[in-house]
Amino acid sequence: MTLDEYLKAGREAVEAALEGLVPAGDERPSTIHQAMRHSLFAGGKRIRPLLFLAAAEAIGPVNDEAVEAACSLELVHTYSLVHDDLPALDNDDLRRGRPTAHKAFGEAMAILAGDALLTRAFEVLAGLEGPPDRRIALVRELATAAGTVDGMIGGQVEDLEAEGKPVEEDRLLYIHRSKTGALIRASVRMGGLWAGPSREQLDALDEYGRRIGLAFQIVDDILDVTATSAELGKTAGKDTEQEKATFPALYGLDESRRRAREHHQAALDAAAVFGERGCRLRQIADRVVDRSN
Amino acid sequence: MTLDEYLKAGREAVEAALEGLVPAGDERPSTIHQAMRHSLFAGGKRIRPLLFLAAAEAIGPVNDEAVEAACSLELVHTYSLVHDDLPALDNDDLRRGRPTAHKAFGEAMAILAGDALLTRAFEVLAGLEGPPDRRIALVRELATAAGTVDGMIGGQVEDLEAEGKPVEEDRLLYIHRSKTGALIRASVRMGGLWAGPSREQLDALDEYGRRIGLAFQIVDDILDVTATSAELGKTAGKDTEQEKATFPALYGLDESRRRAREHHQAALDAAAVFGERGCRLRQIADRVVDRSN
Repeated sequence: MTLDEYLKAGREAVEAALEGLVPAGDERPSTIHQAMRHSLFAGGKRIRPLLFLAAAEAIGPVNDEAVEAACSLELVHTYSLVHDDLPALDNDDLRRGRPTAHKAFGEAMAILAGDALLTRAFEVLAGLEGPPDRRIALVRELATAAGTVDGMIGGQVEDLEAEGKPVEEDRLLYIHRSKTGALIRASVRMGGLWAGPSREQLDALDEYGRRIGLAFQIVDDILDVTATSAELGKTAGKDTEQEKATFPALYGLDESRRRAREHHQAALDAAAVFGERGCRLRQIADRVVDRSN
Repeated sequence: MTLDEYLKAGREAVEAALEGLVPAGDERPSTIHQAMRHSLFAGGKRIRPLLFLAAAEAIGPVNDEAVEAACSLELVHTYSLVHDDLPALDNDDLRRGRPTAHKAFGEAMAILAGDALLTRAFEVLAGLEGPPDRRIALVRELATAAGTVDGMIGGQVEDLEAEGKPVEEDRLLYIHRSKTGALIRASVRMGGLWAGPSREQLDALDEYGRRIGLAFQIVDDILDVTATSAELGKTAGKDTEQEKATFPALYGLDESRRRAREHHQAALDAAAVFGERGCRLRQIADRVVDRSN
Protein backbone atom coordinates (compact mmCIF):
# COMPACT_ATOMS: atom_id res chain seq x y z
CA MET A 1 0.00 0.00 0.00
CA THR A 2 1.35 3.44 -0.88
CA LEU A 3 1.33 6.11 1.82
CA ASP A 4 -1.58 7.86 0.10
CA GLU A 5 -3.59 4.64 0.07
CA TYR A 6 -2.68 3.98 3.68
CA LEU A 7 -3.71 7.49 4.77
CA LYS A 8 -6.94 7.30 2.77
CA ALA A 9 -7.89 3.97 4.36
CA GLY A 10 -7.05 5.32 7.82
CA ARG A 11 -9.02 8.49 7.21
CA GLU A 12 -12.05 6.50 6.08
CA ALA A 13 -11.90 4.34 9.20
CA VAL A 14 -11.67 7.48 11.35
CA GLU A 15 -14.60 9.15 9.53
CA ALA A 16 -16.77 6.07 10.01
CA ALA A 17 -15.89 5.83 13.71
CA LEU A 18 -16.49 9.55 14.30
CA GLU A 19 -19.86 9.19 12.64
CA GLY A 20 -20.87 6.75 15.36
CA LEU A 21 -19.35 8.75 18.21
CA VAL A 22 -21.44 11.92 17.91
CA PRO A 23 -25.25 11.78 18.21
CA ALA A 24 -27.16 12.21 14.94
CA GLY A 25 -28.19 15.70 13.85
CA ASP A 26 -31.82 14.97 14.68
CA GLU A 27 -31.15 13.65 18.18
CA ARG A 28 -32.32 15.98 20.95
CA PRO A 29 -31.12 18.67 21.48
CA SER A 30 -30.62 18.66 17.73
CA THR A 31 -28.97 22.08 17.28
CA ILE A 32 -25.91 21.19 19.34
CA HIS A 33 -25.43 17.89 17.55
CA GLN A 34 -25.68 19.65 14.20
CA ALA A 35 -23.15 22.24 15.35
CA MET A 36 -20.74 19.53 16.56
CA ARG A 37 -21.08 17.71 13.25
CA HIS A 38 -20.70 20.88 11.20
CA SER A 39 -17.19 21.36 12.55
CA LEU A 40 -16.26 17.71 12.92
CA PHE A 41 -17.13 16.73 9.35
CA ALA A 42 -15.58 19.63 7.52
CA GLY A 43 -12.88 17.81 5.63
CA GLY A 44 -10.20 17.72 8.31
CA LYS A 45 -6.98 15.86 7.53
CA ARG A 46 -7.34 13.69 10.68
CA ILE A 47 -3.59 13.91 11.27
CA ARG A 48 -3.83 13.28 15.00
CA PRO A 49 -5.86 10.05 14.81
CA LEU A 50 -3.61 8.88 11.95
CA LEU A 51 -0.54 9.50 14.09
CA PHE A 52 -2.19 7.58 16.95
CA LEU A 53 -2.81 4.61 14.64
CA ALA A 54 0.64 4.68 13.07
CA ALA A 55 2.21 4.75 16.55
CA ALA A 56 0.06 1.86 17.74
CA GLU A 57 0.96 -0.11 14.60
CA ALA A 58 4.63 0.43 15.29
CA ILE A 59 4.12 -1.72 18.38
CA GLY A 60 1.43 -4.23 17.46
CA PRO A 61 -1.80 -4.89 15.54
CA VAL A 62 -4.64 -2.36 15.75
CA ASN A 63 -8.40 -2.87 15.71
CA ASP A 64 -11.66 -0.91 15.73
CA GLU A 65 -11.17 0.05 19.35
CA ALA A 66 -7.88 1.73 18.49
CA VAL A 67 -9.67 3.79 15.85
CA GLU A 68 -12.27 4.87 18.40
CA ALA A 69 -9.60 5.83 20.91
CA ALA A 70 -7.78 7.75 18.16
CA CYS A 71 -10.98 9.71 17.45
CA SER A 72 -10.79 11.30 20.92
CA LEU A 73 -7.90 13.37 19.56
CA GLU A 74 -9.96 14.64 16.63
CA LEU A 75 -12.78 15.60 19.02
CA VAL A 76 -10.35 17.64 21.12
CA HIS A 77 -8.64 19.15 18.07
CA THR A 78 -12.03 20.17 16.63
CA TYR A 79 -13.18 21.71 19.92
CA SER A 80 -10.00 23.80 19.96
CA LEU A 81 -10.66 25.04 16.41
CA VAL A 82 -14.27 25.94 17.22
CA HIS A 83 -13.25 27.99 20.25
CA ASP A 84 -10.17 29.51 18.56
CA ASP A 85 -12.34 30.77 15.71
CA LEU A 86 -14.71 32.67 18.05
CA PRO A 87 -14.93 36.47 17.73
CA ALA A 88 -13.27 36.94 21.13
CA LEU A 89 -10.29 34.85 20.01
CA ASP A 90 -9.08 34.62 16.39
CA ASN A 91 -12.39 35.88 14.94
CA ASP A 92 -12.26 33.67 11.86
CA ASP A 93 -15.24 33.39 9.52
CA LEU A 94 -13.81 30.66 7.35
CA ARG A 95 -12.38 27.26 8.26
CA ARG A 96 -11.51 24.58 5.72
CA GLY A 97 -13.40 26.67 3.18
CA ARG A 98 -16.67 26.64 5.13
CA PRO A 99 -18.32 29.05 7.59
CA THR A 100 -16.97 28.58 11.09
CA ALA A 101 -19.30 27.19 13.77
CA HIS A 102 -20.27 30.56 15.22
CA LYS A 103 -20.98 31.91 11.74
CA ALA A 104 -23.26 28.97 10.99
CA PHE A 105 -24.87 28.42 14.42
CA GLY A 106 -24.28 31.59 16.43
CA GLU A 107 -21.77 32.27 19.15
CA ALA A 108 -23.61 30.64 22.06
CA MET A 109 -24.01 27.37 20.19
CA ALA A 110 -20.38 27.43 19.04
CA ILE A 111 -19.15 27.81 22.62
CA LEU A 112 -21.37 24.94 23.76
CA ALA A 113 -20.46 22.76 20.76
CA GLY A 114 -16.77 23.17 21.62
CA ASP A 115 -17.50 22.27 25.23
CA ALA A 116 -19.47 19.24 24.08
CA LEU A 117 -16.73 17.97 21.75
CA LEU A 118 -14.18 18.20 24.56
CA THR A 119 -16.48 16.43 27.01
CA ARG A 120 -17.32 13.71 24.50
CA ALA A 121 -13.62 12.97 23.95
CA PHE A 122 -13.24 11.85 27.56
CA GLU A 123 -16.51 9.95 27.49
CA VAL A 124 -15.27 8.04 24.44
CA LEU A 125 -12.00 7.07 26.11
CA ALA A 126 -13.78 6.04 29.33
CA GLY A 127 -16.22 3.92 27.32
CA LEU A 128 -13.60 1.82 25.49
CA GLU A 129 -13.54 -1.94 25.99
CA GLY A 130 -9.86 -2.31 26.89
CA PRO A 131 -8.25 -2.74 30.32
CA PRO A 132 -9.17 0.10 32.76
CA ASP A 133 -5.53 1.01 33.49
CA ARG A 134 -4.93 1.56 29.79
CA ARG A 135 -8.04 3.70 29.45
CA ILE A 136 -7.07 5.80 32.46
CA ALA A 137 -3.59 6.35 31.00
CA LEU A 138 -5.22 7.64 27.80
CA VAL A 139 -7.57 10.00 29.69
CA ARG A 140 -4.67 11.37 31.66
CA GLU A 141 -2.45 11.86 28.63
CA LEU A 142 -5.19 13.65 26.69
CA ALA A 143 -6.23 15.91 29.58
CA THR A 144 -2.65 16.95 30.29
CA ALA A 145 -1.91 17.65 26.62
CA ALA A 146 -5.08 19.75 26.34
CA GLY A 147 -4.46 21.64 29.60
CA THR A 148 -2.79 24.83 30.75
CA VAL A 149 0.65 23.69 31.92
CA ASP A 150 2.68 23.07 28.75
CA GLY A 151 -0.61 22.01 27.10
CA MET A 152 -2.82 23.29 24.32
CA ILE A 153 -4.72 25.89 26.34
CA GLY A 154 -1.48 27.21 27.81
CA GLY A 155 -0.06 27.67 24.33
CA GLN A 156 -3.22 29.39 23.18
CA VAL A 157 -3.05 31.84 26.10
CA GLU A 158 0.59 32.72 25.45
CA ASP A 159 -0.19 33.07 21.76
CA LEU A 160 -3.02 35.53 22.48
CA GLU A 161 -0.85 37.51 24.87
CA ALA A 162 2.01 37.66 22.38
CA GLU A 163 -0.13 39.39 19.74
CA GLY A 164 1.17 42.81 18.77
CA LYS A 165 4.23 42.48 21.02
CA PRO A 166 7.84 41.99 19.87
CA VAL A 167 8.39 38.24 19.47
CA GLU A 168 10.58 36.73 22.18
CA GLU A 169 12.31 33.42 21.52
CA ASP A 170 11.41 31.94 24.89
CA ARG A 171 7.72 32.67 24.41
CA LEU A 172 7.73 31.48 20.79
CA LEU A 173 9.24 28.13 21.77
CA TYR A 174 6.69 27.77 24.58
CA ILE A 175 3.84 28.47 22.13
CA HIS A 176 5.13 25.96 19.58
CA ARG A 177 5.69 23.28 22.18
CA SER A 178 2.28 23.76 23.78
CA LYS A 179 -0.26 25.08 21.33
CA THR A 180 -0.02 22.45 18.61
CA GLY A 181 2.92 20.39 19.77
CA ALA A 182 1.40 18.99 22.96
CA LEU A 183 -1.59 17.38 21.26
CA ILE A 184 0.47 15.96 18.39
CA ARG A 185 2.95 14.51 20.82
CA ALA A 186 0.04 13.09 22.84
CA SER A 187 -1.42 11.54 19.66
CA VAL A 188 1.74 9.54 19.18
CA ARG A 189 2.15 8.68 22.87
CA MET A 190 -1.51 7.64 23.19
CA GLY A 191 -1.19 5.32 20.20
CA GLY A 192 1.74 3.72 21.96
CA LEU A 193 -0.04 3.57 25.33
CA TRP A 194 -3.04 1.94 23.68
CA ALA A 195 -0.82 -0.81 22.28
CA GLY A 196 1.09 -1.36 25.53
CA PRO A 197 4.66 -0.20 24.88
CA SER A 198 7.98 -1.08 26.45
CA ARG A 199 9.81 1.77 28.17
CA GLU A 200 12.15 2.09 25.19
CA GLN A 201 9.25 2.16 22.73
CA LEU A 202 7.36 4.83 24.65
CA ASP A 203 10.51 6.96 24.88
CA ALA A 204 11.05 6.65 21.14
CA LEU A 205 7.43 7.60 20.44
CA ASP A 206 7.71 10.52 22.82
CA GLU A 207 10.76 11.87 20.98
CA TYR A 208 9.20 11.24 17.57
CA GLY A 209 5.98 12.97 18.68
CA ARG A 210 7.81 15.94 20.16
CA ARG A 211 9.88 16.49 17.03
CA ILE A 212 7.03 16.00 14.61
CA GLY A 213 4.88 18.42 16.65
CA LEU A 214 7.54 21.12 16.42
CA ALA A 215 8.11 20.51 12.70
CA PHE A 216 4.36 20.64 12.12
CA GLN A 217 3.96 24.04 13.77
CA ILE A 218 7.00 25.54 12.03
CA VAL A 219 5.64 24.38 8.66
CA ASP A 220 2.24 25.84 9.62
CA ASP A 221 3.89 29.19 10.30
CA ILE A 222 5.78 29.02 7.00
CA LEU A 223 2.65 28.14 5.00
CA ASP A 224 0.77 31.07 6.51
CA VAL A 225 3.37 33.30 4.83
CA THR A 226 3.94 31.42 1.57
CA ALA A 227 0.63 29.73 0.66
CA THR A 228 -2.63 31.17 -0.64
CA SER A 229 -5.99 31.06 1.18
CA ALA A 230 -7.24 28.64 -1.47
CA GLU A 231 -4.36 26.24 -0.81
CA LEU A 232 -4.83 26.47 2.97
CA GLY A 233 -8.64 26.36 3.04
CA LYS A 234 -8.40 29.20 5.57
CA THR A 235 -7.38 32.84 5.47
CA ALA A 236 -3.64 33.07 4.65
CA GLY A 237 -1.47 35.78 6.13
CA LYS A 238 -3.55 35.99 9.34
CA ASP A 239 -0.48 35.53 11.53
CA THR A 240 1.27 38.54 10.06
CA GLU A 241 -1.92 40.59 10.15
CA GLN A 242 -2.54 39.73 13.81
CA GLU A 243 1.17 40.15 14.63
CA LYS A 244 1.38 36.61 15.97
CA ALA A 245 4.56 35.16 17.36
CA THR A 246 5.75 32.90 14.53
CA PHE A 247 8.99 31.23 13.44
CA PRO A 248 9.33 33.20 10.19
CA ALA A 249 8.74 36.45 12.11
CA LEU A 250 11.60 35.68 14.49
CA TYR A 251 14.08 33.72 12.36
CA GLY A 252 13.09 34.38 8.75
CA LEU A 253 11.95 31.74 6.23
CA ASP A 254 15.33 30.10 5.54
CA GLU A 255 16.21 29.47 9.16
CA SER A 256 12.63 28.30 9.82
CA ARG A 257 12.93 25.75 7.00
CA ARG A 258 16.29 24.58 8.34
CA ARG A 259 14.80 23.98 11.80
CA ALA A 260 11.82 22.10 10.36
CA ARG A 261 14.27 19.81 8.54
CA GLU A 262 16.26 19.32 11.72
CA HIS A 263 13.18 18.20 13.69
CA HIS A 264 12.12 16.03 10.76
CA GLN A 265 15.45 14.20 10.79
CA ALA A 266 15.33 13.73 14.56
CA ALA A 267 11.83 12.24 14.24
CA LEU A 268 13.10 9.77 11.60
CA ASP A 269 15.99 8.81 13.88
CA ALA A 270 13.64 8.22 16.82
CA ALA A 271 11.35 6.00 14.73
CA ALA A 272 14.31 3.85 13.61
CA VAL A 273 13.95 1.66 16.71
CA PHE A 274 10.71 0.22 15.29
CA GLY A 275 12.38 -1.05 12.11
CA GLU A 276 9.93 -2.07 9.42
CA ARG A 277 6.92 -1.51 11.74
CA GLY A 278 7.84 2.18 12.00
CA CYS A 279 7.66 2.70 8.23
CA ARG A 280 4.40 4.67 8.36
CA LEU A 281 5.68 6.92 11.13
CA ARG A 282 8.66 7.81 8.97
CA GLN A 283 6.52 8.39 5.89
CA ILE A 284 4.13 10.61 7.85
CA ALA A 285 7.09 12.62 9.12
CA ASP A 286 8.11 13.20 5.49
CA ARG A 287 4.59 14.30 4.63
CA VAL A 288 4.34 16.72 7.55
CA VAL A 289 7.29 18.77 6.29
CA ASP A 290 6.44 18.47 2.59
CA ARG A 291 2.73 19.37 2.75
CA SER A 292 1.26 22.42 1.00
CA ASN A 293 -1.75 22.90 3.35
CA MET B 1 -21.58 17.47 64.85
CA THR B 2 -24.46 19.67 63.69
CA LEU B 3 -25.21 19.82 59.96
CA ASP B 4 -23.73 23.32 59.78
CA GLU B 5 -20.51 22.13 61.42
CA TYR B 6 -20.43 19.12 59.12
CA LEU B 7 -20.93 21.25 55.99
CA LYS B 8 -18.35 23.78 57.17
CA ALA B 9 -15.74 21.06 57.75
CA GLY B 10 -16.53 19.50 54.36
CA ARG B 11 -16.33 22.85 52.65
CA GLU B 12 -12.95 23.58 54.22
CA ALA B 13 -11.61 20.21 53.09
CA VAL B 14 -12.87 20.92 49.56
CA GLU B 15 -11.36 24.43 49.52
CA ALA B 16 -7.99 23.07 50.63
CA ALA B 17 -8.06 20.32 48.01
CA LEU B 18 -9.12 22.70 45.22
CA GLU B 19 -6.25 24.97 46.20
CA GLY B 20 -3.83 22.18 45.37
CA LEU B 21 -5.61 21.12 42.17
CA VAL B 22 -5.24 24.34 40.17
CA PRO B 23 -1.80 25.79 39.40
CA ALA B 24 -0.83 28.89 41.39
CA GLY B 25 -1.70 32.31 40.00
CA ASP B 26 1.95 32.97 39.20
CA GLU B 27 2.53 29.71 37.34
CA ARG B 28 2.95 30.12 33.59
CA PRO B 29 0.78 31.06 31.77
CA SER B 30 -0.27 33.09 34.79
CA THR B 31 -3.35 34.86 33.38
CA ILE B 32 -5.29 31.65 32.79
CA HIS B 33 -4.52 30.30 36.24
CA GLN B 34 -5.63 33.58 37.78
CA ALA B 35 -8.84 33.47 35.76
CA MET B 36 -9.53 29.87 36.81
CA ARG B 37 -8.94 30.80 40.45
CA HIS B 38 -11.05 33.95 40.23
CA SER B 39 -14.12 31.87 39.45
CA LEU B 40 -13.24 28.81 41.49
CA PHE B 41 -12.61 30.69 44.73
CA ALA B 42 -15.58 33.02 44.71
CA GLY B 43 -17.45 31.70 47.72
CA GLY B 44 -19.33 28.85 46.08
CA LYS B 45 -21.41 26.59 48.33
CA ARG B 46 -19.60 23.45 47.10
CA ILE B 47 -22.89 21.54 47.10
CA ARG B 48 -21.79 19.00 44.50
CA PRO B 49 -18.58 17.91 46.26
CA LEU B 50 -20.48 17.82 49.58
CA LEU B 51 -23.11 15.55 48.02
CA PHE B 52 -20.32 13.33 46.67
CA LEU B 53 -18.81 13.03 50.15
CA ALA B 54 -22.14 12.44 51.90
CA ALA B 55 -22.98 9.70 49.38
CA ALA B 56 -19.57 8.06 49.82
CA GLU B 57 -19.99 8.21 53.63
CA ALA B 58 -23.34 6.50 53.36
CA ILE B 59 -21.41 3.46 52.13
CA GLY B 60 -18.07 3.58 53.91
CA PRO B 61 -15.26 5.75 55.29
CA VAL B 62 -13.89 8.58 53.14
CA ASN B 63 -10.36 9.97 52.86
CA ASP B 64 -8.38 12.74 51.15
CA GLU B 65 -8.65 10.98 47.83
CA ALA B 66 -12.45 11.11 48.03
CA VAL B 67 -12.23 14.87 48.57
CA GLU B 68 -10.01 15.22 45.50
CA ALA B 69 -12.40 13.15 43.39
CA ALA B 70 -15.30 15.25 44.69
CA CYS B 71 -13.50 18.41 43.56
CA SER B 72 -13.81 17.31 39.93
CA LEU B 73 -17.51 18.19 40.22
CA GLU B 74 -16.75 21.70 41.42
CA LEU B 75 -14.33 22.19 38.52
CA VAL B 76 -17.04 21.18 36.04
CA HIS B 77 -19.70 23.23 37.81
CA THR B 78 -17.45 26.30 37.79
CA TYR B 79 -16.60 25.87 34.09
CA SER B 80 -20.32 25.80 33.33
CA LEU B 81 -20.89 29.03 35.27
CA VAL B 82 -17.99 30.78 33.51
CA HIS B 83 -19.32 29.87 30.07
CA ASP B 84 -23.00 30.50 31.01
CA ASP B 85 -22.12 34.01 32.13
CA LEU B 86 -20.51 34.94 28.79
CA PRO B 87 -22.09 37.75 26.74
CA ALA B 88 -23.22 35.28 24.06
CA LEU B 89 -25.06 33.21 26.67
CA ASP B 90 -26.62 34.68 29.84
CA ASN B 91 -24.54 37.87 29.69
CA ASP B 92 -24.14 38.19 33.46
CA ASP B 93 -21.79 40.76 34.97
CA LEU B 94 -22.16 39.59 38.54
CA ARG B 95 -21.72 36.15 40.08
CA ARG B 96 -21.67 35.51 43.82
CA GLY B 97 -21.38 39.26 44.27
CA ARG B 98 -18.18 39.57 42.21
CA PRO B 99 -17.42 40.44 38.58
CA THR B 100 -17.83 37.41 36.32
CA ALA B 101 -14.72 35.95 34.67
CA HIS B 102 -15.16 37.75 31.36
CA LYS B 103 -15.71 41.05 33.19
CA ALA B 104 -12.49 40.58 35.13
CA PHE B 105 -10.28 38.90 32.51
CA GLY B 106 -11.92 39.54 29.15
CA GLU B 107 -13.98 37.22 27.01
CA ALA B 108 -11.15 35.24 25.40
CA MET B 109 -9.62 34.37 28.75
CA ALA B 110 -13.02 33.44 30.21
CA ILE B 111 -13.68 31.02 27.36
CA LEU B 112 -10.25 29.43 27.82
CA ALA B 113 -10.55 29.37 31.63
CA GLY B 114 -13.82 27.46 31.32
CA ASP B 115 -12.19 25.03 28.89
CA ALA B 116 -9.29 24.60 31.28
CA LEU B 117 -11.49 23.91 34.32
CA LEU B 118 -13.37 21.24 32.39
CA THR B 119 -10.15 19.64 31.14
CA ARG B 120 -8.61 19.72 34.60
CA ALA B 121 -11.61 17.89 36.08
CA PHE B 122 -10.84 14.82 33.98
CA GLU B 123 -7.13 15.08 34.63
CA VAL B 124 -7.84 15.09 38.37
CA LEU B 125 -9.99 11.96 38.18
CA ALA B 126 -7.45 10.16 35.98
CA GLY B 127 -4.68 11.07 38.42
CA LEU B 128 -6.31 9.57 41.54
CA GLU B 129 -4.60 6.76 43.42
CA GLY B 130 -7.51 4.31 43.52
CA PRO B 131 -8.16 1.25 41.34
CA PRO B 132 -8.24 2.07 37.59
CA ASP B 133 -11.72 0.60 37.07
CA ARG B 134 -13.11 2.91 39.75
CA ARG B 135 -11.40 5.94 38.22
CA ILE B 136 -12.71 5.09 34.76
CA ALA B 137 -16.25 4.75 36.14
CA LEU B 138 -15.92 8.26 37.61
CA VAL B 139 -14.62 9.74 34.35
CA ARG B 140 -17.47 8.17 32.44
CA GLU B 141 -20.12 9.29 34.89
CA LEU B 142 -18.85 12.87 34.89
CA ALA B 143 -18.49 13.11 31.12
CA THR B 144 -21.99 11.76 30.52
CA ALA B 145 -23.56 14.08 33.11
CA ALA B 146 -21.77 17.07 31.55
CA GLY B 147 -22.63 16.09 27.98
CA THR B 148 -25.34 16.76 25.42
CA VAL B 149 -27.66 13.75 25.74
CA ASP B 150 -29.69 14.34 28.93
CA GLY B 151 -26.59 16.08 30.33
CA MET B 152 -25.67 19.59 31.39
CA ILE B 153 -24.86 20.97 27.93
CA GLY B 154 -28.06 19.49 26.53
CA GLY B 155 -30.07 21.25 29.23
CA GLN B 156 -28.29 24.50 28.58
CA VAL B 157 -29.05 24.29 24.84
CA GLU B 158 -32.76 23.61 25.42
CA ASP B 159 -32.81 26.41 27.98
CA LEU B 160 -31.34 28.87 25.48
CA GLU B 161 -33.73 27.77 22.78
CA ALA B 162 -36.73 28.07 25.10
CA GLU B 163 -36.06 31.77 25.78
CA GLY B 164 -38.92 34.00 24.70
CA LYS B 165 -41.10 31.07 23.62
CA PRO B 166 -44.21 29.78 25.39
CA VAL B 167 -43.06 27.30 28.04
CA GLU B 168 -43.84 23.69 27.18
CA GLU B 169 -43.97 21.13 29.96
CA ASP B 170 -41.96 18.53 28.05
CA ARG B 171 -39.12 20.97 27.41
CA LEU B 172 -39.20 22.35 30.96
CA LEU B 173 -38.85 18.88 32.44
CA TYR B 174 -35.98 18.11 30.05
CA ILE B 175 -34.22 21.31 31.08
CA HIS B 176 -34.64 20.60 34.79
CA ARG B 177 -33.49 17.03 34.45
CA SER B 178 -30.45 17.93 32.36
CA LYS B 179 -29.23 21.43 33.08
CA THR B 180 -28.69 21.19 36.83
CA GLY B 181 -30.14 17.80 37.62
CA ALA B 182 -27.67 15.66 35.71
CA LEU B 183 -24.58 16.97 37.51
CA ILE B 184 -26.21 16.81 40.95
CA ARG B 185 -27.33 13.26 40.31
CA ALA B 186 -23.81 12.45 39.11
CA SER B 187 -22.35 13.97 42.29
CA VAL B 188 -24.30 11.51 44.38
CA ARG B 189 -23.66 8.55 42.07
CA MET B 190 -19.93 9.33 41.85
CA GLY B 191 -19.64 9.44 45.64
CA GLY B 192 -21.21 5.99 45.67
CA LEU B 193 -19.03 4.71 42.84
CA TRP B 194 -15.93 5.96 44.61
CA ALA B 195 -16.87 3.96 47.73
CA GLY B 196 -17.74 0.79 45.82
CA PRO B 197 -21.51 0.34 46.19
CA SER B 198 -23.77 -2.69 46.04
CA ARG B 199 -26.37 -2.67 43.27
CA GLU B 200 -29.06 -1.73 45.81
CA GLN B 201 -26.95 1.10 47.23
CA LEU B 202 -26.20 2.57 43.80
CA ASP B 203 -29.88 2.41 42.87
CA ALA B 204 -30.83 4.21 46.08
CA LEU B 205 -28.20 6.89 45.47
CA ASP B 206 -29.38 7.28 41.90
CA GLU B 207 -32.97 7.88 43.03
CA TYR B 208 -31.87 10.20 45.82
CA GLY B 209 -29.65 12.15 43.40
CA ARG B 210 -32.35 12.40 40.77
CA ARG B 211 -34.94 13.69 43.21
CA ILE B 212 -32.61 16.11 44.95
CA GLY B 213 -31.50 17.47 41.58
CA LEU B 214 -35.08 18.18 40.54
CA ALA B 215 -35.92 19.75 43.93
CA PHE B 216 -32.77 21.87 43.69
CA GLN B 217 -33.70 23.31 40.31
CA ILE B 218 -37.32 23.99 41.26
CA VAL B 219 -36.16 25.85 44.38
CA ASP B 220 -33.67 27.78 42.20
CA ASP B 221 -36.53 28.83 39.91
CA ILE B 222 -38.65 29.85 42.91
CA LEU B 223 -35.83 31.87 44.48
CA ASP B 224 -35.26 33.75 41.24
CA VAL B 225 -38.81 35.06 41.64
CA THR B 226 -39.00 35.51 45.43
CA ALA B 227 -35.48 36.43 46.61
CA THR B 228 -33.49 39.64 46.22
CA SER B 229 -30.21 39.99 44.32
CA ALA B 230 -28.44 40.55 47.65
CA GLU B 231 -29.77 37.27 49.03
CA LEU B 232 -28.86 35.36 45.87
CA GLY B 233 -25.45 36.96 45.27
CA LYS B 234 -26.51 37.19 41.62
CA THR B 235 -29.06 39.20 39.68
CA ALA B 236 -32.58 38.17 40.78
CA GLY B 237 -35.48 38.12 38.36
CA LYS B 238 -33.22 37.26 35.37
CA ASP B 239 -35.35 34.25 34.44
CA THR B 240 -38.48 36.36 34.05
CA GLU B 241 -36.60 39.11 32.26
CA GLN B 242 -35.06 36.60 29.81
CA GLU B 243 -38.37 34.72 29.50
CA LYS B 244 -36.74 31.48 30.61
CA ALA B 245 -38.67 28.24 30.91
CA THR B 246 -39.14 27.90 34.69
CA PHE B 247 -41.41 26.00 37.07
CA PRO B 248 -43.14 29.08 38.49
CA ALA B 249 -43.76 30.37 34.95
CA LEU B 250 -45.54 27.14 33.99
CA TYR B 251 -47.19 25.99 37.25
CA GLY B 252 -47.19 29.04 39.53
CA LEU B 253 -45.41 29.29 42.89
CA ASP B 254 -47.75 27.11 44.97
CA GLU B 255 -47.64 24.13 42.64
CA SER B 256 -43.87 24.58 42.24
CA ARG B 257 -43.44 24.45 46.03
CA ARG B 258 -45.62 21.35 46.23
CA ARG B 259 -43.49 19.57 43.63
CA ALA B 260 -40.27 20.52 45.41
CA ARG B 261 -41.67 18.99 48.62
CA GLU B 262 -42.67 15.86 46.73
CA HIS B 263 -39.16 15.35 45.35
CA HIS B 264 -37.72 16.14 48.79
CA GLN B 265 -39.79 13.39 50.39
CA ALA B 266 -38.87 10.89 47.69
CA ALA B 267 -35.18 11.68 48.28
CA LEU B 268 -35.60 11.04 52.02
CA ASP B 269 -37.32 7.74 51.28
CA ALA B 270 -34.52 6.65 48.94
CA ALA B 271 -31.85 7.47 51.53
CA ALA B 272 -33.64 5.38 54.17
CA VAL B 273 -31.83 2.25 52.99
CA PHE B 274 -28.57 3.60 54.45
CA GLY B 275 -30.02 3.91 57.98
CA GLU B 276 -27.83 5.98 60.30
CA ARG B 277 -25.06 6.30 57.67
CA GLY B 278 -27.50 8.17 55.41
CA CYS B 279 -28.18 10.87 58.02
CA ARG B 280 -26.20 13.56 56.20
CA LEU B 281 -27.89 12.80 52.89
CA ARG B 282 -31.27 13.33 54.54
CA GLN B 283 -30.14 16.54 56.26
CA ILE B 284 -28.74 17.91 53.00
CA ALA B 285 -32.04 17.14 51.28
CA ASP B 286 -33.79 19.23 53.94
CA ARG B 287 -31.34 22.07 53.40
CA VAL B 288 -31.74 22.03 49.61
CA VAL B 289 -35.46 22.80 49.87
CA ASP B 290 -35.21 25.22 52.82
CA ARG B 291 -32.33 27.40 51.55
CA SER B 292 -32.70 31.09 50.85
CA ASN B 293 -29.92 31.36 48.26
